[in-house]
Amino acid sequence: MPTRDEIFMERCIELAGKGAGYVSPNPLVGCVIVKNGKIVAEGFHKKYGAFHAERAAINSALKKGISLKGAELFVNLEPCAHFGKTPPCSNLIVEHKFSRVVIGIKDPYHLVAGKGIRLLKNSGIEVKVGVLEEECREINRFFFKLVTTGLPYVMIKTAQTLDGKIADIKNRSKWISSPKSRRLVHALRANYDAVLVGKNTVKHDNPELTVRMIKGRDPIRVVIDKKAELSLKNKVFAGRFSANTIMITSHLANISRIKGLEKLGVKIIYCKSTNGIIDINDALKKLASIGVSSIMVEGGSFTYSEFIKKNLVDEFMIFIAPKIMGSGIEAFSIPNQFKNFKQFNYYTSGTDVLVNIKK
Amino acid sequence: MPTRDEIFMERCIELAGKGAGYVSPNPLVGCVIVKNGKIVAEGFHKKYGAFHAERAAINSALKKGISLKGAELFVNLEPCAHFGKTPPCSNLIVEHKFSRVVIGIKDPYHLVAGKGIRLLKNSGIEVKVGVLEEECREINRFFFKLVTTGLPYVMIKTAQTLDGKIADIKNRSKWISSPKSRRLVHALRANYDAVLVGKNTVKHDNPELTVRMIKGRDPIRVVIDKKAELSLKNKVFAGRFSANTIMITSHLANISRIKGLEKLGVKIIYCKSTNGIIDINDALKKLASIGVSSIMVEGGSFTYSEFIKKNLVDEFMIFIAPKIMGSGIEAFSIPNQFKNFKQFNYYTSGTDVLVNIKK
Repeated sequence: MPTRDEIFMERCIELAGKGAGYVSPNPLVGCVIVKNGKIVAEGFHKKYGAFHAERAAINSALKKGISLKGAELFVNLEPCAHFGKTPPCSNLIVEHKFSRVVIGIKDPYHLVAGKGIRLLKNSGIEVKVGVLEEECREINRFFFKLVTTGLPYVMIKTAQTLDGKIADIKNRSKWISSPKSRRLVHALRANYDAVLVGKNTVKHDNPELTVRMIKGRDPIRVVIDKKAELSLKNKVFAGRFSANTIMITSHLANISRIKGLEKLGVKIIYCKSTNGIIDINDALKKLASIGVSSIMVEGGSFTYSEFIKKNLVDEFMIFIAPKIMGSGIEAFSIPNQFKNFKQFNYYTSGTDVLVNIKK
Repeated sequence: MPTRDEIFMERCIELAGKGAGYVSPNPLVGCVIVKNGKIVAEGFHKKYGAFHAERAAINSALKKGISLKGAELFVNLEPCAHFGKTPPCSNLIVEHKFSRVVIGIKDPYHLVAGKGIRLLKNSGIEVKVGVLEEECREINRFFFKLVTTGLPYVMIKTAQTLDGKIADIKNRSKWISSPKSRRLVHALRANYDAVLVGKNTVKHDNPELTVRMIKGRDPIRVVIDKKAELSLKNKVFAGRFSANTIMITSHLANISRIKGLEKLGVKIIYCKSTNGIIDINDALKKLASIGVSSIMVEGGSFTYSEFIKKNLVDEFMIFIAPKIMGSGIEAFSIPNQFKNFKQFNYYTSGTDVLVNIKK
């Protein structure tokens, strides 16, 4: 049986999730205000730059004419104590004389990191920290990764046959996974800040990498092409999409092609390279520095393998279709490197099985 | 809601299953006798050469002093009409003056094939055929395959990583699947007439291919070794196991090795070969002719691939472990040959996912 605090925290997490895809690189936060054992107001962080969840909930209560003195406030992440896009929430909570604050998990961000909790405690408010802590960390895994490592959270998504092939010998990869799995991939795109592919995937598949099969916002498209060889006519650079695309390239880049990309509105990021291979770690750092907290890697084999070799993968979503390809392109071409995962789940996804692995 | 007939037929199928592993190449058959809407006696075919299910049920009723006149008899497969190891069951049913007989599915075996049904009908018994027909066919899929094609039912079992590898580059394959999956494989061995492996699997793994992790009878071991090159010291030939082993070989076989195998009690079957590769179809026919109705193929890659290329596989059981191997031995090395399976199920098996595909 969940405790009273857990029931209210569960609701905070649920509210927090409503901001998914829109608040990055900020965390997902939901907040409920409880009086006499009942929720009297709710709020969540709706989009980057908008009110924090605590302020949204407090505003909602005030609008209804509810006095907050002696009320309880529940929030899945420690309230901020610094001036960011908005004034600090901790001060606001103190100001309204809440008697108790329940916090899911401490904020790891160095400008908060316990400061919010101390400020509340020093004002005589009863503070409880650590309710559904794992769930609170999980919902903000992108944010936690970014602020603790300076790197985005990386998820590798593959669609493969039973024999581990992501495309046939002619590099054709369409229709491996079921329509339901493809729809799920579009939903994932709407939740990740960016989708990333290597040059060959653009060359062979010419994907749009947009959200189409469901309603949701398009992610940033990131293409790795160390020599900037790809044609400007590819869908990922074309028309209304181009302004939302980032090209990761190197000093080897074809200058006239770069000029063409810039004219289309594509953002160019130059990264280090070793033996003609882009330094993925450098690329991730630079993407993080412009606010990309989460990346879904969508192919191909070479790109997947670079991430795995450098140990930069936080999660795998492997769609396995009930098909045998025979000869074809393998999902991963890495040296003998036995990885035995501890945390994983299986789901059926249409006619496929989805293997979800977390580091 | 299942009908009254389906409820009694379900029980027949359940009883039939108790003979699994012991009746081959006979079918699995269960029988219930119903009087006044209640089951008064049950029987099943316990082992090859023992009473048929109908006779077992009738004997059980007679022992209890129950008069069978006017009773109903349910059985998952058409009663036999020929003298085999035992006298025909159809005559026995007529003799005891049953009023109604419900048959799950018609027996495809040419010596029965409707003759049992006709005999019963001609004696004025009410006969219903086709209750839970699919389930009745499924439980006797080995038998149906054998009598309709003259070939054994073939199931390929693999244990592979997410990237489709069944062994590392040094051919080490142990511990890919979870303990629960390995236990399940032992249970499967107890249900298949034979397990079959290629030469390289014996060479690299030296498996016993016996039933150990659960209680059950050992299968026949079949090894394909066209030149009879394998050492006699391999476990599959050694000690108490040897008399239960069949060597599939060709005219290329090393004669002194063959003599050594025969001394150990290993049965030798010579098969056709093309370009130095054993003709699997010929091997299957010869195995069928000595009563092998079902074979589980346990490796390796070359052997799996031969069965797939020749389209001789009825079922796959693919255990996928949450591991990435990198370089290693692929489960299937077949030319580009896209197989899209329609009938499949997913199960979790310990830490693995089991993909079960039926043709």
